Amino acid sequence: MFCWLSRLYRGLSRPTRRTTQLTWGSFSRSLVLSSQRRIPELSSFVARTNTCGELRSSYLGQEVTLCGWIQYRRQNIFLVLRDFHGLVQVIIPQDESAASVKKILCEAPMESVVQVSGTVISRPPGQENPKMPTGEIEIKVKTAKLLNSCKKLPFEIKDFVKKTEALRLRYRYLDLRGVQMQYNLRLRSQMVMKMREYLCNLHGFVDIETPTLFKRTPGGAKEFVIPSREPGKFYSLPQSPQQFKQLLMVGGLDRYFQVARCYRDEGSRPDRQPEFTQIDIEMSFVEQTGIQSLIEGLLQYSWPSDKDPVVVPFPSMTFAEALASYGTDKPDTRFGMKIVDISDMFRNTKVGFLQDALSKPQGTIKAICIPEGEKYLKRKDIESIRKFAADHFNQCSLLGKLRLECADLLEARGVVLRDPALFSFLWVVDFPLFFPKEENPEALEAAHHPFTAPHPSDVHLLYTEPQKVRSQHYDLVLNGSEIGGGSIRIHDAELQHYILATVLKEDVKLLSHLLQALDYGAPPHGGIAIGLDRLMCLVTGAPSIRDVIAFPKSFQGHDLMSNAPDSIPPEELKPYHIQVSWPTDSKTEKSSLNHPCHPES
Amino acid sequence: MFCWLSRLYRGLSRPTRRTTQLTWGSFSRSLVLSSQRRIPELSSFVARTNTCGELRSSYLGQEVTLCGWIQYRRQNIFLVLRDFHGLVQVIIPQDESAASVKKILCEAPMESVVQVSGTVISRPPGQENPKMPTGEIEIKVKTAKLLNSCKKLPFEIKDFVKKTEALRLRYRYLDLRGVQMQYNLRLRSQMVMKMREYLCNLHGFVDIETPTLFKRTPGGAKEFVIPSREPGKFYSLPQSPQQFKQLLMVGGLDRYFQVARCYRDEGSRPDRQPEFTQIDIEMSFVEQTGIQSLIEGLLQYSWPSDKDPVVVPFPSMTFAEALASYGTDKPDTRFGMKIVDISDMFRNTKVGFLQDALSKPQGTIKAICIPEGEKYLKRKDIESIRKFAADHFNQCSLLGKLRLECADLLEARGVVLRDPALFSFLWVVDFPLFFPKEENPEALEAAHHPFTAPHPSDVHLLYTEPQKVRSQHYDLVLNGSEIGGGSIRIHDAELQHYILATVLKEDVKLLSHLLQALDYGAPPHGGIAIGLDRLMCLVTGAPSIRDVIAFPKSFQGHDLMSNAPDSIPPEELKPYHIQVSWPTDSKTEKSSLNHPCHPES
Repeated sequence: MFCWLSRLYRGLSRPTRRTTQLTWGSFSRSLVLSSQRRIPELSSFVARTNTCGELRSSYLGQEVTLCGWIQYRRQNIFLVLRDFHGLVQVIIPQDESAASVKKILCEAPMESVVQVSGTVISRPPGQENPKMPTGEIEIKVKTAKLLNSCKKLPFEIKDFVKKTEALRLRYRYLDLRGVQMQYNLRLRSQMVMKMREYLCNLHGFVDIETPTLFKRTPGGAKEFVIPSREPGKFYSLPQSPQQFKQLLMVGGLDRYFQVARCYRDEGSRPDRQPEFTQIDIEMSFVEQTGIQSLIEGLLQYSWPSDKDPVVVPFPSMTFAEALASYGTDKPDTRFGMKIVDISDMFRNTKVGFLQDALSKPQGTIKAICIPEGEKYLKRKDIESIRKFAADHFNQCSLLGKLRLECADLLEARGVVLRDPALFSFLWVVDFPLFFPKEENPEALEAAHHPFTAPHPSDVHLLYTEPQKVRSQHYDLVLNGSEIGGGSIRIHDAELQHYILATVLKEDVKLLSHLLQALDYGAPPHGGIAIGLDRLMCLVTGAPSIRDVIAFPKSFQGHDLMSNAPDSIPPEELKPYHIQVSWPTDSKTEKSSLNHPCHPES
Repeated sequence: MFCWLSRLYRGLSRPTRRTTQLTWGSFSRSLVLSSQRRIPELSSFVARTNTCGELRSSYLGQEVTLCGWIQYRRQNIFLVLRDFHGLVQVIIPQDESAASVKKILCEAPMESVVQVSGTVISRPPGQENPKMPTGEIEIKVKTAKLLNSCKKLPFEIKDFVKKTEALRLRYRYLDLRGVQMQYNLRLRSQMVMKMREYLCNLHGFVDIETPTLFKRTPGGAKEFVIPSREPGKFYSLPQSPQQFKQLLMVGGLDRYFQVARCYRDEGSRPDRQPEFTQIDIEMSFVEQTGIQSLIEGLLQYSWPSDKDPVVVPFPSMTFAEALASYGTDKPDTRFGMKIVDISDMFRNTKVGFLQDALSKPQGTIKAICIPEGEKYLKRKDIESIRKFAADHFNQCSLLGKLRLECADLLEARGVVLRDPALFSFLWVVDFPLFFPKEENPEALEAAHHPFTAPHPSDVHLLYTEPQKVRSQHYDLVLNGSEIGGGSIRIHDAELQHYILATVLKEDVKLLSHLLQALDYGAPPHGGIAIGLDRLMCLVTGAPSIRDVIAFPKSFQGHDLMSNAPDSIPPEELKPYHIQVSWPTDSKTEKSSLNHPCHPES
């Protein structure tokens, strides 16, 4: 009788890339699985006695008051009420004396908000719905109150998920009612809470808020600027609390963490957000292995209990090895198909282009072996691989990309290479300290940031061959995505000054406060930052980081719901001593902005 | 023998306004008192085995490795090592074989960072220091390592606190090493953690991050603006997550909280910060009393255990009563001296100015009775009260200010009116929904914000006498400071539209997304925000909110350490389509900015 429910929810829950579909039923179960040792009270302080989703046979006979949204109504007899916790069936009373209750429950449009009071009764034999966690019971209603009526929605809510993402973002408050977004945001909150318990309560870390109104950092071209009330003076929104956390170490707050909001203006980039969140950590008197153990414990402790437990320690791989075997610094180690050096097999080859390759300094011939490729890959696939290779010719990351491309092809043919239940963590270590600048390969830039300490064995090379120096930087990779990175920092003022001024040719004045701080008793220190949005995206199997953020921006950095960024009347810019430089070649664009406050309109 | 220590720390610890001085000893004790049920491991993952401050007689004979700053050295025999947890005495070895250890420990300047390994031994009889938590033991050192040498500080560290606050802010990383800042920041972290436990683990709240790159809100003149890469389009930094938290309720995330960074550009204002933090809470299906109970429980649960427990429920007072009895909407209820209406006693007076006052509509005569005022207040005091009254004549808040002024005078004469150990919470309720605009008293503005719901008994007045409507707003007051405020919100789209458009004459278009959301099944909801900085300031007895913030801005909104806000080269402004409007009448000011990148320099 209630099999429509599971169908409805199959409709409501958006399919995710790699995991199975979520329904209100499975959600409810996983909420219980991953809840704290003490189950939280979900109905304290409010007008309900229980959540819709928690009711079971054990509640039989209880008088309950529920608040929720009308999910479904059938024949003016059954009504399904929904809250974040799940669904429950309500029996609409049919007798004359309850006419007003019937009227309320039958006339309220779908998605209206109602409060009902009544008794938990068992469903008639044979009418139980085993697919519904509350499927053994229903509510015999005595009173009902319409709390808010819902206007006709611009689309059927069950079709909602089939609409474009733009529509979902525009009506984000409706999208959030869906089971997948509820699960993602609630799991995120729970995981972060467990991380806090691990850091604060188990290991004595101090949660310290650092400013977001800061000054620009050297080379900080991706930092948003905020005009101040002083002419020509701007704050900048920092890309991370890097400087502050190091200064906290100098200040003796020797185990710092923060769930830190960070900002990066990268213009329009898919799957990036102008503001994002990182679990930001710094410790004094620590070495690389200490940070790594801390993070392994952190992930193990906070990992959702409905997933396979995290196994520690994580394997480790050098940057050089990652590039050689996987063609990338963030290898997906869930499957093999490593890159193999087969140069030796071709030393005496007569094939021209292979001879050419081997005759070059450090010239090599490399291959990827695709297991059973012959069986699975079609001629069309081979052709697309050939084309892919041609398109990416001369890019050193070609083989790494080719490996992933082949994996995609194999999986499209039904081979399971990357188990969606598998979480494969990897440390990548021994990065170079510097890279040649893209626009000027003679000059060097910091591979990560200028505060990264050189590898102890390579310090002597700093003054002779800086491009050969390895760093004490480490990246944390999960299933082929970089989810974190950190380093042991430089705590020696002289070394820091040398790297900034002599190697990197940066404006040291912008960092004089940090250099001075290093001179006044800075302890050795190091840290890491975990990208929370990316991590949650992988944990939930969401297709985009926008699915683990309550109110994300679109590709173009827009809030499609509220229409941010928005025009501002010139008089509101005056206190900040700025004016808009309208592009001279975009008259049409200007008028299309339709901006009533524009000085020329 | 070690009485110098307590003297040193009396010097190091900044005296606070109302509480007793903090020393490393008392700090250490209070840390233990207020620690979690499970004591955190403070030395996991790092190069030390123990903290300096934790060692006691129970550690006798143990081999330990400590890391810390050199606090004090005496006769090249004793060295006091400090970490955040406290102090410990280290015996510098004098025998030939340990010459290198002696050299390191004797030559390192004060505030240098060292690592020492050795044995915990008991001090010789009679040499224990009962004032020092580690005063029964000392460390017999075997090895020592200089981790970082400290350059000569620009001032003696023990004199540091006597310097100006500007100097403290400039060298914030040194200021943070002091016992008071360590206590304030660590207590803040612990209290916030307990609040999270209460909200997440006990009551099922969901921690949700909302965007800070938003659009301007109606009347949001105090919002910082951030130029985007689209000409003329700006993000705004919101003053609170108000709209987002209401949208989350519409989205069915019915118990939300966030430790939210908020922004307000109020120019130069003492004891305000351009960015600040609030404990931001919203619930669906809740009434005023529900929010109040939640908050009472929250403060009781998170209250530091070294203070008297919080007694709940908090008393409640209407706005009208607060004004009548205390002359302010945030009464300090730690002491009496209420304002009394004595009009009736003067109905038949012949005194001219009193007759005048009573003849006016709603004219009253009010008084404050100062207990034993005759005994304590000098002629000079009476004179200053008279002058104060004259200076504030015709301000309706005069009597409230006079009451506080009198309290100050009495306390200056030694009367204890406001017990520093007393925390007196108070709800102030039934605020007016609107106030007349200052610049145009015919027009109305929202007393708090336009989303506040009217008092149920006054709804009918909205359409006839809106100025008489009371609201469902509530303020939380602690010792005469407003530490929080919230309300039941409007969940009816029509009512919200009427108030915005007809009563407040706001631009409804800026809020069309919110109005639309209310139409699509918005549950009744309400919430509150607690000002964390102000709360921590009162809890720690700090003289300024800058003392509970790691890196605060100065009065003028400057970061004195890093020199933010700073100049930005015009080419970095180009992508944002803005240019600086240099004030034409400030040539001198401009040149004094000393800005190398200015287009005219």
